[in-house]
Amino acid sequence: MNQEKVNELSRWMAKENVDVAYITNPNSISYLSGFTSDPHERVLALFFSPTHDPFLFTPALEADTARQSSWPYDVVGYLDTQNPWQIIAEELTTRYGKPQQLAIEKSAFTLDRFEQLASYFPTTDFSKDLTAVIQQMQLRKTPSEIETLLEAGNWADVAFEIGFSAIKDGVTEEEIAAEIEYQLKRKGVSHMSFDTTVLVGPHAANPHGAPNQTPVKANELVLFDLGVVWKGYCSDATRTVAYKEPTAFQEKIHAIVLEAQLAAQAAVKPGMTASQLDKIARDIITDYGYGEAFNHRLGHGIGTSIHEYPSIVAGNDLIIEEGMCFSIEPGIYLPNQVGVRIEDCVYVTKDGCQPFTKTPKELLIIN
Amino acid sequence: MNQEKVNELSRWMAKENVDVAYITNPNSISYLSGFTSDPHERVLALFFSPTHDPFLFTPALEADTARQSSWPYDVVGYLDTQNPWQIIAEELTTRYGKPQQLAIEKSAFTLDRFEQLASYFPTTDFSKDLTAVIQQMQLRKTPSEIETLLEAGNWADVAFEIGFSAIKDGVTEEEIAAEIEYQLKRKGVSHMSFDTTVLVGPHAANPHGAPNQTPVKANELVLFDLGVVWKGYCSDATRTVAYKEPTAFQEKIHAIVLEAQLAAQAAVKPGMTASQLDKIARDIITDYGYGEAFNHRLGHGIGTSIHEYPSIVAGNDLIIEEGMCFSIEPGIYLPNQVGVRIEDCVYVTKDGCQPFTKTPKELLIIN
Repeated sequence: MNQEKVNELSRWMAKENVDVAYITNPNSISYLSGFTSDPHERVLALFFSPTHDPFLFTPALEADTARQSSWPYDVVGYLDTQNPWQIIAEELTTRYGKPQQLAIEKSAFTLDRFEQLASYFPTTDFSKDLTAVIQQMQLRKTPSEIETLLEAGNWADVAFEIGFSAIKDGVTEEEIAAEIEYQLKRKGVSHMSFDTTVLVGPHAANPHGAPNQTPVKANELVLFDLGVVWKGYCSDATRTVAYKEPTAFQEKIHAIVLEAQLAAQAAVKPGMTASQLDKIARDIITDYGYGEAFNHRLGHGIGTSIHEYPSIVAGNDLIIEEGMCFSIEPGIYLPNQVGVRIEDCVYVTKDGCQPFTKTPKELLIIN
Repeated sequence: MNQEKVNELSRWMAKENVDVAYITNPNSISYLSGFTSDPHERVLALFFSPTHDPFLFTPALEADTARQSSWPYDVVGYLDTQNPWQIIAEELTTRYGKPQQLAIEKSAFTLDRFEQLASYFPTTDFSKDLTAVIQQMQLRKTPSEIETLLEAGNWADVAFEIGFSAIKDGVTEEEIAAEIEYQLKRKGVSHMSFDTTVLVGPHAANPHGAPNQTPVKANELVLFDLGVVWKGYCSDATRTVAYKEPTAFQEKIHAIVLEAQLAAQAAVKPGMTASQLDKIARDIITDYGYGEAFNHRLGHGIGTSIHEYPSIVAGNDLIIEEGMCFSIEPGIYLPNQVGVRIEDCVYVTKDGCQPFTKTPKELLIIN
């Protein structure tokens, strides 16, 4: 259990007069309780009260695993044949009394489930949203979280090495992606933080393209976007390399993206806003005439999820603080021509930032 | 676009006096529109009106891909810097007028998003839930869907072959799982329908256990639970095999589970209830004294998602009909001793059912 964060939650509950905090998001449950599980369509929940012990609610299938985990409090299991909402309602009432204010994670609670829950508590106030409270907790990482994110970043560097070594004439995007994931699994990295992306030539001009049977060809760029989940924390990094001699145009686009990425990374400082940081990279790309070809935000937070807060985007006045972790990933996408993106995730220090990934960003030419 | 199902939706809307159907679940969007995308935390939506053309709403990043897909109607994109709810509200009002009744998929709509949407339509009635409507559509598969499910099942059979061939002294669960996924990726199967499960010996006694570094040992059982996504449709199958001579007890447990699986599969007939089917397998296992060790439902529906309706569980009086597709997967889990599960997914025919997977279910002994 993450005692420091649970205390933070308890203080918030006391201040806001909240009787019960209902944590729904498996990611938040893992973050606070230390118990990690994907319940699929079943119900998994974690309940806190400011005055009584918390408890975990899990499918019966997971209950023993939860009891054997480091979670020190009760675990209540429910069978497929039982109505989980009825059991939750009974447990809450027995343990904590009828709640006056029950706070939920509105970003992770579906409307049908909310209606089920609310039907048992017709007089309870559900207006308080825990989403921002938990986002706020997760916004600044602790030194030990940064330690783990550095380890996850290191595995991304290993993944790049495997990927770069797999490049040769005719090998397909899919084959390279398969090779990366296979080698990592054999090394004990069981999950990627998202589907490994390998895109060759113009295929990389789709910023959300997926690997297919496009083969590597000489004088094309190859974009790698990848990351792993390591001890519950994610990495995420992008490199664009050349197979054999790149064209002058490819080199030029890569150089612009690199300039924007390096400038933004060098500019990170506590006290600036997310919007200002986005602008630094965007202005460079815009000045070269490719502003429209950089059609996504500069970055996203990273931690136990691959996309969390802060969002590094125009209009976000959130102030960057020490301990925040996010991606810096400008790109230029020119349909039918070229796609280049360069990305490091970083953690903010007292006076700058440090990347989680160390693979060089200058255009690597693979022969 | 799935014209037949869109017509079905239109008829429902007309009957229920619904002005707008708002499809949220990426899976339902793919099913109805033919456009497949994982929007992560961004907003992806599909809108239908009984009187006007439908439209797709996507992140700007995906808009071009959607326009190039087989979707024949408008695609509206939004940038990260824009408020998607405002654009949705404007588009809906301009295209369809202020909705009186806007139906949503309550099982896929989070409460915070619902509050955003509802804030633009203070007088609209949102009480109608599309979840059951879409579940109902997907409950009985068409012959062409069954065709694709058979192909997906065939890939699961290929996966078993790869996995069985990878078994040898000392190889770990993780290594076998990595081998299966790698070989399939190289054959063009880019996604598994869930994390490939390989569990050795007593580790298989946790029905939701995940592969780790447990090595294969002689005289242990090895449980494989796996499936692929093929053309948008899932497969899911489980086999438990022996590495070298099994013990008499392992053989006995396997034989009981097999008897239950075969009896249930042979009993499937349109007109019976899901609950009755569950009971057939459960009674056999209970009669042998292991009822408590079969601690999950008999099965789940399968199609474009790995778990959909019908749920084959005690208490579900849903009547089984021709075209329904679901798993039949009894198991016996004895902590610290043994875990056996045997699973085929089947499609219901006029007078019985046929499995999607053909790998033999008798206890295979690998030497």
